Amino acid sequence: MTTATNPTAQDSSGQNSAPAEGATGLLIEIDHVAIAVRDLEAAIAYYADTFGATVEHRERIDSDGVEEALIKVADSYIQLLTPVADTSPVAKYLDNKGEGIHHVGYRVADCGEALDAVKAQGYRTIDQAPRPGSRGTTVAFVHPKEAFGTLIELVQE
Amino acid sequence: MTTATNPTAQDSSGQNSAPAEGATGLLIEIDHVAIAVRDLEAAIAYYADTFGATVEHRERIDSDGVEEALIKVADSYIQLLTPVADTSPVAKYLDNKGEGIHHVGYRVADCGEALDAVKAQGYRTIDQAPRPGSRGTTVAFVHPKEAFGTLIELVQE
Repeated sequence: MTTATNPTAQDSSGQNSAPAEGATGLLIEIDHVAIAVRDLEAAIAYYADTFGATVEHRERIDSDGVEEALIKVADSYIQLLTPVADTSPVAKYLDNKGEGIHHVGYRVADCGEALDAVKAQGYRTIDQAPRPGSRGTTVAFVHPKEAFGTLIELVQE
Repeated sequence: MTTATNPTAQDSSGQNSAPAEGATGLLIEIDHVAIAVRDLEAAIAYYADTFGATVEHRERIDSDGVEEALIKVADSYIQLLTPVADTSPVAKYLDNKGEGIHHVGYRVADCGEALDAVKAQGYRTIDQAPRPGSRGTTVAFVHPKEAFGTLIELVQE
């Protein structure tokens, strides 16, 4: 007999263990899909003209060297992203890989908790601590190496 | 004077005209973000062990030469995708680009209507007509060339 009768009991690291089938865990929403583009106005026009989907929020994030336009889709966003500085990681991405899906942002309740869960597995992170993101969020990026080539952003609203 | 006072007035193709700021248009949800991986079991373990996010649905789609595992996140999915045939487009993608985000699926009310909206703009599509997708959906892919490098799937539940 054991007192741990709950199959989703937390272990001391705070991670869920043996989650039930279909469990959502720390990821509560696809916050956004980020598309790296060279011409932000043209990309905005593509989504508006083709799908009638229009921009809800625009922001220049100088610390990341990018300007973004957010198209709201239900509780998620399409994040159109263009570099405003040659040193931006997005500028390097465009040079190396061309336009396309750059990263996916998952909404989490607590960015620090989710980042710790990644570190607890021994996986690398790009940000060592949560930092300010766009539209007042708190964010951290996970290194794509162990995440099957996917650049993952953890986003706390 | 002209009667066309609205620069984005609706034309006879039935596309949305002059969408209000933040309008969603034809895209009603991010249906899924598809991640191309070489080892499906390892990728499933990554999301379960790191985030406590587990698989709700698995399916082999022989017509596309892939096996997929769907992790539900709110009303969206992370779609882990691996080839089961050398001729699969996903096999070619892995050979050329490696693991990573392969495409994004947007949920639409009517796949045929959304596909027609793309064609009405003169943009190429991979599928010329809607076809069966996984979990009983009806789907069509848009060519990434004009879509800023993004492979877009239109998904009708």
